[in-house]
Amino acid sequence: MSESVPVLDFGTMTEVVQFLMELDKLKRVERRTRLIGNSRHENSAEHSWHLAMAALSLAPFAGANIDIQRVVQMALLHDVVEIDAGDVLVYDLAGREAVHDEEIAAANRIFGLLPAAQRERFRTLWDEYEAGETAEARYANMLDRALPIMLNLHNEGQSWRENGIRLEQVVNRNQRLARQWPELWQHLHQHLQSAQQKGWLQ
Amino acid sequence: MSESVPVLDFGTMTEVVQFLMELDKLKRVERRTRLIGNSRHENSAEHSWHLAMAALSLAPFAGANIDIQRVVQMALLHDVVEIDAGDVLVYDLAGREAVHDEEIAAANRIFGLLPAAQRERFRTLWDEYEAGETAEARYANMLDRALPIMLNLHNEGQSWRENGIRLEQVVNRNQRLARQWPELWQHLHQHLQSAQQKGWLQ
Repeated sequence: MSESVPVLDFGTMTEVVQFLMELDKLKRVERRTRLIGNSRHENSAEHSWHLAMAALSLAPFAGANIDIQRVVQMALLHDVVEIDAGDVLVYDLAGREAVHDEEIAAANRIFGLLPAAQRERFRTLWDEYEAGETAEARYANMLDRALPIMLNLHNEGQSWRENGIRLEQVVNRNQRLARQWPELWQHLHQHLQSAQQKGWLQ
Repeated sequence: MSESVPVLDFGTMTEVVQFLMELDKLKRVERRTRLIGNSRHENSAEHSWHLAMAALSLAPFAGANIDIQRVVQMALLHDVVEIDAGDVLVYDLAGREAVHDEEIAAANRIFGLLPAAQRERFRTLWDEYEAGETAEARYANMLDRALPIMLNLHNEGQSWRENGIRLEQVVNRNQRLARQWPELWQHLHQHLQSAQQKGWLQ
């Protein structure tokens, strides 16, 4: 993934253009989810777009006073580190732990392509998302969990079936969502139970 | 493209979830551009993410006082109508004219899935982008032109070569960019001339 892209002179914009060309590589990072009704795997760039659209569209239901601009920016940035570190399944807890240092190194390298002001702005947003402590980061995090569940529910449980996921795992990994956004969780949980009855989840 | 997606009950969020599942189809709309160093065509969903990232990253160079939040939202929304109308090459002027009515019908259908408040918000943003009259819409429009040029310049002129594009066409289609963002155009134009010398553009 780290083959180099030619550097062209864009004056004071050179570093930013270089960063944008580097971002093109996120379109090659495959997730486990496939498109609805389609055999192709989703990639992390189009997922980031979908997550930003989910954040915008569901904002009126998010409860607290959310700075939606910051949420959208976190959604756009949250997976950029996967250019170096790859995508790890949300239920692979050991794999996610193992990849954490790689993600930090990736953030250093990729945001490091930018001039200081943007580098700090984007890194601060990415750190905020990772820490998951502000209302905005929590909202973005919850949607990053909820969106693949919604896709699976509309796609006959495709990635659960392919990866042998159990209902219990989904429930355990989403306790925070259940606590913090009970209205959304209530519907998800009901559909998850009926997905299990259909054999889409073990 | 318009096969229907199952509708699941999410209470007051049902329409928004349905809209989000409909958006999944934008990941299937192919553009003429390919990924840098890769044989696959770019799709309109990942392009929309890339455009939103370009808007965020280049904001400090955009000159006037730009409401970046609105630009990012326009970038995320600008191609949603392609779910029904498909992508038309920027240099195919007759094709773009012909598809205009389809895009309006697509905006009615797709944003029409949403409850009134979000429908009006998203439609207003899409209309603003299409009209191209505000500073924010012009900035988003210019980047929507500039980004594929940058990708082509970093990818041996791939979509120009594949579609037999002439330097003159690129210059003519970007007169507004040249006028409104001369610093960016100066660099693009210089690289375009050297691309022509390499035979990437006719």
